[in-house]
Amino acid sequence: MNIAINTGGGDAPGLNAAIRAATLAALKRGWNVYGIRNGYGSIFTDDPFVQLYPRSVRGITFQGGTILGTANRGNPFEMPYVDEDGNEKTRDVSDQLVETFDKHNIDALVAIGGDGSMRIANKLVQKGINIVGIPKTIDNDIYGCDVTLGFDTAVTTATEALDKITTTAEAHHRLMVVEVMGRYAGWIALHSGISSSADVILIPEIPFTYDSIVQKIKEREQRNRHYTMIVVAEGAKEKDGELVTKGKSVGQEVRLGGIAERVANELSERTGKESRSVVLGHLQRGGSPTTYDRLISLRFGAAAIRCIADKDFNKLVALRDNIMARVPIDEIAGKMKSVPLDSDTLQTARDIGICMGD
Amino acid sequence: MNIAINTGGGDAPGLNAAIRAATLAALKRGWNVYGIRNGYGSIFTDDPFVQLYPRSVRGITFQGGTILGTANRGNPFEMPYVDEDGNEKTRDVSDQLVETFDKHNIDALVAIGGDGSMRIANKLVQKGINIVGIPKTIDNDIYGCDVTLGFDTAVTTATEALDKITTTAEAHHRLMVVEVMGRYAGWIALHSGISSSADVILIPEIPFTYDSIVQKIKEREQRNRHYTMIVVAEGAKEKDGELVTKGKSVGQEVRLGGIAERVANELSERTGKESRSVVLGHLQRGGSPTTYDRLISLRFGAAAIRCIADKDFNKLVALRDNIMARVPIDEIAGKMKSVPLDSDTLQTARDIGICMGD
Amino acid sequence: MNIAINTGGGDAPGLNAAIRAATLAALKRGWNVYGIRNGYGSIFTDDPFVQLYPRSVRGITFQGGTILGTANRGNPFEMPYVDEDGNEKTRDVSDQLVETFDKHNIDALVAIGGDGSMRIANKLVQKGINIVGIPKTIDNDIYGCDVTLGFDTAVTTATEALDKITTTAEAHHRLMVVEVMGRYAGWIALHSGISSSADVILIPEIPFTYDSIVQKIKEREQRNRHYTMIVVAEGAKEKDGELVTKGKSVGQEVRLGGIAERVANELSERTGKESRSVVLGHLQRGGSPTTYDRLISLRFGAAAIRCIADKDFNKLVALRDNIMARVPIDEIAGKMKSVPLDSDTLQTARDIGICMGD
Amino acid sequence: MNIAINTGGGDAPGLNAAIRAATLAALKRGWNVYGIRNGYGSIFTDDPFVQLYPRSVRGITFQGGTILGTANRGNPFEMPYVDEDGNEKTRDVSDQLVETFDKHNIDALVAIGGDGSMRIANKLVQKGINIVGIPKTIDNDIYGCDVTLGFDTAVTTATEALDKITTTAEAHHRLMVVEVMGRYAGWIALHSGISSSADVILIPEIPFTYDSIVQKIKEREQRNRHYTMIVVAEGAKEKDGELVTKGKSVGQEVRLGGIAERVANELSERTGKESRSVVLGHLQRGGSPTTYDRLISLRFGAAAIRCIADKDFNKLVALRDNIMARVPIDEIAGKMKSVPLDSDTLQTARDIGICMGD
Repeated sequence: MNIAINTGGGDAPGLNAAIRAATLAALKRGWNVYGIRNGYGSIFTDDPFVQLYPRSVRGITFQGGTILGTANRGNPFEMPYVDEDGNEKTRDVSDQLVETFDKHNIDALVAIGGDGSMRIANKLVQKGINIVGIPKTIDNDIYGCDVTLGFDTAVTTATEALDKITTTAEAHHRLMVVEVMGRYAGWIALHSGISSSADVILIPEIPFTYDSIVQKIKEREQRNRHYTMIVVAEGAKEKDGELVTKGKSVGQEVRLGGIAERVANELSERTGKESRSVVLGHLQRGGSPTTYDRLISLRFGAAAIRCIADKDFNKLVALRDNIMARVPIDEIAGKMKSVPLDSDTLQTARDIGICMGD
Repeated sequence: MNIAINTGGGDAPGLNAAIRAATLAALKRGWNVYGIRNGYGSIFTDDPFVQLYPRSVRGITFQGGTILGTANRGNPFEMPYVDEDGNEKTRDVSDQLVETFDKHNIDALVAIGGDGSMRIANKLVQKGINIVGIPKTIDNDIYGCDVTLGFDTAVTTATEALDKITTTAEAHHRLMVVEVMGRYAGWIALHSGISSSADVILIPEIPFTYDSIVQKIKEREQRNRHYTMIVVAEGAKEKDGELVTKGKSVGQEVRLGGIAERVANELSERTGKESRSVVLGHLQRGGSPTTYDRLISLRFGAAAIRCIADKDFNKLVALRDNIMARVPIDEIAGKMKSVPLDSDTLQTARDIGICMGD
Repeated sequence: MNIAINTGGGDAPGLNAAIRAATLAALKRGWNVYGIRNGYGSIFTDDPFVQLYPRSVRGITFQGGTILGTANRGNPFEMPYVDEDGNEKTRDVSDQLVETFDKHNIDALVAIGGDGSMRIANKLVQKGINIVGIPKTIDNDIYGCDVTLGFDTAVTTATEALDKITTTAEAHHRLMVVEVMGRYAGWIALHSGISSSADVILIPEIPFTYDSIVQKIKEREQRNRHYTMIVVAEGAKEKDGELVTKGKSVGQEVRLGGIAERVANELSERTGKESRSVVLGHLQRGGSPTTYDRLISLRFGAAAIRCIADKDFNKLVALRDNIMARVPIDEIAGKMKSVPLDSDTLQTARDIGICMGD
Repeated sequence: MNIAINTGGGDAPGLNAAIRAATLAALKRGWNVYGIRNGYGSIFTDDPFVQLYPRSVRGITFQGGTILGTANRGNPFEMPYVDEDGNEKTRDVSDQLVETFDKHNIDALVAIGGDGSMRIANKLVQKGINIVGIPKTIDNDIYGCDVTLGFDTAVTTATEALDKITTTAEAHHRLMVVEVMGRYAGWIALHSGISSSADVILIPEIPFTYDSIVQKIKEREQRNRHYTMIVVAEGAKEKDGELVTKGKSVGQEVRLGGIAERVANELSERTGKESRSVVLGHLQRGGSPTTYDRLISLRFGAAAIRCIADKDFNKLVALRDNIMARVPIDEIAGKMKSVPLDSDTLQTARDIGICMGD
């Protein structure tokens, strides 16, 4: 049996642990293991694969990043190229990818990735490739999984950053607006905000009003809390028509990631208090995985191999109800897991007095 | 509505977060909240309760320990006392506890504790006290819950310690035997052992043979790995008759916690390699909770109050299938959650080449 | 003896430890200790002081921030106010500050602060106030001291952030430009850059050329290192005329903190490689102090009290040659400690192959 | 120029960083670098050296342990062997070591080690080997240096452990006695004890009395502090005749490391309070270096190469007065750096109310 492993999309802590467990579990069964270098885009190069041995994966459980490399532009169905006139275009090279796999006698593929990778995987399945997916994204928004590889570390990094910034907010009597990742789902903002005792959490699932935040700030002032910590997911948005007062950024084209600055300016205008914004950015994506992420990543990697051994293809190995479930990829591809508005975690935030912006 | 909160048994990271969430969630509903000082034993003192306000629980999410204090001897059904002749005895003072609750108009009790606390809670229920339990133990062995408050932090502390000790083992070409907590269940050993890339993990659920470990050590030597990391739960045991060679500790009365030294000596005798043992001990019990433990502890605390608000008494709020379930206390009291021999986590350990001692 | 303690300027980890040690050491001598609330600006309020007792400083060694609060606008010689026409102006209120001190019988002041605070202290000395200073700044640029309170924690926070970002840079084959604090001196950039194995470090003391960085990037590509980590102090600057190619930010008014984005854009233009910039910002200022900062902060606090006990006023207690020296404030006020171009640390950077931009 | 690098004695965090800097700095000068495998004992094997290249030292700054390996029995002047009758003996093989160096054209040796290694180095110098030493020991007791490689990490590990144990001590109202390394000098105990707000610190430099500790415990009880944290260096000792009450361990042969248990038992007997002892042991020796240790280790490594380049042999590169000084090895070999009884750090401990046992 020959298997290939691909890591697609953004970096996430735990990728190497998953690669290690998949490699060791496969080698134990006498299989050959090939890593795809830097994503599907390299499949057309002379040397697309690196064969993996025990020594290749030694000591990597703790390491951030991926020893295989990853690429942002790795979709074989829309592979970018530059045409004769110098224009950037894309083309479907999936058939060539299938050929390459055939030529190298790859029997199955472990596809470690997020939502985009699962959509690609679902289409490759239809081309006849045997795939087992591993859910990876720091955003935790893959449908059908309780938790994804990388999420716990991202939340921990964000929480530690929030802890640090809180002490400064308090010392200086400031409003601090901290932007965390989460373009479509508020998981990181919600979990890190609760864990760091934030005062306000703004998530994409709940359009927010400045009035609600201003009220929270005022209540705190009355209790001699002269600072307020506001965590905002990058994809959070105001309710329509809410932004009345003209903050400095308003009216400008606001690039993605600009929400923290906009909120900081607007709240400063409305309350007269000093504010600062911080964008955590790439900090959340890298680094050594937490113990929790180490373990589930290793479990994901080993579970994927057992799935292949059972010839139970086209499944995502998912942590569900505390066990490693197998979910058909076509059931989850293209869907997204938002924070449910009735989740107990969201209710916990409200119960302990956190303003959710509504 | 007046509620009391009790923290029983050993210290665990997250207790204060649970107290904070329960207090804030109850105050939000207009209730009064009373903390029991140092466990049930204090219920007969003049001042058994401390009333809790927002300021009482400010900033404690991150703190280890319990602001209420705890006690090892807090069982009202077997409360220790010294009789006239100076002998230590125990007596049932549960009726007086009920009286004290009545006198102070306590409507419900949030009992935060482990297996012992749940057994006590189950008996107090029968005396008419309205109880909601929160599962707390670093050992993760409470029946009916996917995970308990404090476990993730204990695993993280053990894993970080194992990481440190591994570098020394490798530098010095030694066998290192590290004892972690787990008298009856091997959860901490299994999770921290996998997460730290240990070579051997010994847990109570799987009686071990020295032969299996010696074989692992020899295989490693052949691959030029001149050190071996062995994680042993304090409750792990040899198979009967296994200990043939006389290690230094054999035949002596071995106090609890002596397993690491015994294994280290025996393996040194059998392999001729230098060995060292380390007992992590109380290190695993205290300290600031991980982000994961902060969050679930807050969720537990808030869920307990919602449970009381629903008058849904005599339940344990349990994390089950990723949601806050309510489990009847009488269904779980007195039972224990061992590591299932067919769990995917155990299978992961074997898949990545860890020797489980069998 | 009555003493007052003031914390001035920006937040820094270790402030609370210094307050605690000063308070306990003074109380031990039977003195009274008064903390100034939120900096000198409050000295004209009704309640400028909070008296400090052992319980006031209990458990604060580990806490970031300052229990006294601080303020950006706390210079009594240029205290801001709004005149009748609504214009912001400043006035000298130092005499009133002296009166307030006299009225409350303050015998000596412990002034914890940075360069600005020491300039103020030097002028207050001339008004007859007995002062002992404690050097506090995460930037480490106070003249006459080997190291300042807060620096080790800021370097550690920056290094941990760089470690995280490095794994992503490597996985994605990117140029990563990370901006750290240091408007006038490159201490944080130099120490965190070396400690995190950065490839390029840009500091205010050494004007940089893009050519030198591009050359470094190319050398790395040749050795199959397809990523480059660049640490830049916020005050680093290009040599005159260096910026030839038009990056996106060029020609615009660049706000402080914009250096990272400018460098990222310019290098992307020149090398054709993907780049990202991250501004660590306030992250570096707050949080729990490292063990090193805890200890020196406690040493600073206790040393300041011994200095007062000796009536050895108008001194800065400074860590110098590993002991607590006493440096006349008027010798160091207004001066700055840059990274010496012949320091062994800078030489270490060059010796291990780090490009310093020249 | 050919140089060799040796790591001798116990593991310490930062060894790999020093190896990396020395290697890179030497390669930059066009030299060849050879690492000695597992200490001097291997010098007589067929393959004593491993040549070091940039890739050999890539990414190791952060790793604990030593890539070269170390050995406890590496003294060439007393090399252990087993004679014909099976008895363990030692012999002087230093001439053979010199021959091996000559045969491989080693021009200079970087000896990274502690007191023992420096004594060996001093004797090898007299045999004509050109040596530059790097001071390494977690105990910080090398004469002539302000601080040694590994010390800051050991103190940090001990402090974090003490932080954890303190929360449990407080929750359970216990006496906790924690033993840290330091057979002859109390540096780790003093620094970690102060940094973790311990109540009592016992060091070899100050023989202690139980009376002083009991008094401290009683004072704390009166202030409603029902727990006491006691940090004890492994080499701390009672004053003669002090141990009157018979604790459980008294009179037995007490192995090294037994001081914590003895103190815990004795204090329990004398105060009637519950006590526990924890021995941190090997935990302090390994692991990833702190940012501080990373930096000074790199500085040590690079400074050693500059020292060799200057042909300034038989020196220890020492951090002294914040610069890299060069100290003649024969001036420091065989001496030890104790905690000075008049140091400001010790005075700080007393000033903030810590009992030093006298």
